[in-house]
Amino acid sequence: MKTPEPIKRFADIFSELPGVGPRQALRIALYAVHKGRSFIDLIAAAAVGLKQVKVCRRCFNLYENDGDFCEICSSSSRDAGIIAVVEKETDLLSIEKTGKFNGRYLVFGDMRRVGVLTSEQKIKLKSLEEDISNSASRKAKEIILALNPNPVGDVISSLVAEELRPFAEKITRLGRGIPSGGEIEFADEETLGEAISRRY
Amino acid sequence: MKTPEPIKRFADIFSELPGVGPRQALRIALYAVHKGRSFIDLIAAAAVGLKQVKVCRRCFNLYENDGDFCEICSSSSRDAGIIAVVEKETDLLSIEKTGKFNGRYLVFGDMRRVGVLTSEQKIKLKSLEEDISNSASRKAKEIILALNPNPVGDVISSLVAEELRPFAEKITRLGRGIPSGGEIEFADEETLGEAISRRY
Repeated sequence: MKTPEPIKRFADIFSELPGVGPRQALRIALYAVHKGRSFIDLIAAAAVGLKQVKVCRRCFNLYENDGDFCEICSSSSRDAGIIAVVEKETDLLSIEKTGKFNGRYLVFGDMRRVGVLTSEQKIKLKSLEEDISNSASRKAKEIILALNPNPVGDVISSLVAEELRPFAEKITRLGRGIPSGGEIEFADEETLGEAISRRY
Repeated sequence: MKTPEPIKRFADIFSELPGVGPRQALRIALYAVHKGRSFIDLIAAAAVGLKQVKVCRRCFNLYENDGDFCEICSSSSRDAGIIAVVEKETDLLSIEKTGKFNGRYLVFGDMRRVGVLTSEQKIKLKSLEEDISNSASRKAKEIILALNPNPVGDVISSLVAEELRPFAEKITRLGRGIPSGGEIEFADEETLGEAISRRY
């Protein structure tokens, strides 16, 4: 007696998904079989639905509408002169949720540990530079490097800043310090140090 | 800007899967979009493939072949007079992997914490009893209660043993003691106690 082939196939492909191991993939397969055919159809339909998702040609964010650009890039109420460079779509969504940002984005893609730009990231930067050069002002008002405040993010941020310097009046990074609701006592030295030097 | 609808739908259904939270479901959706259309097709096909899986009418195990019974129940080289009652398909697969068991199974279904039998479990027991009564010998040679060795498993095992007593010459449970490769020093009291009283 071996695991039925369809369950094995399902477990194989699902264990490729981020954070899903082979055992969990098997558990998911058995769960889905027990839930029955209509649940299986829901899973398949949800997967197929992802094919409707497009990548914005301007900011490389994911979107669904009919246009060539995502909602943010095609919105007239957003300030196209302020651009936040984010690593991932989830970072973009987190920033959107704050309601404190009314510019647009560049979804930059996963940062390599070694602190070099991937060829894809270089293409994205060139594309942004071209986009800015073709704008009326020829320079962005501000480019915010909204990359994670860790050593890799620092290295990448300085590479990107160097590259984009001629295209922006101002290049900034997100504020650093003690998180709201956090306690000084439990802040690590690095964080507390940043909080002191960036006091306001 | 909100999460594109197809991504949200995918994340919603995937976060229903065992061990997958909403954040991981979103991460999986984004991963799949980035992997592209053919990967998405693989996921959908793997899900749809699960519909080929059937439940054996005799042992309630999952199987794929054309017959009415699973491979084990329809095999003439297995001893139908020895029946292991297991909680889950994965337990069955684990026992099969040992190569030490040549009987058949009853896949009993998840044990309730409160230590009572579900109506489904009662139906399965009745079905097994009928099956045994219709056999030539009218009694199973042995029924092994291969349920987890914990308090719930103990309670359920005694309920099942009581129910099946008239239908088996012998009712047994899996051996208990220190796991192979384990160390006496690190065994909990309960386990060490069992190992002592079941010394051989």
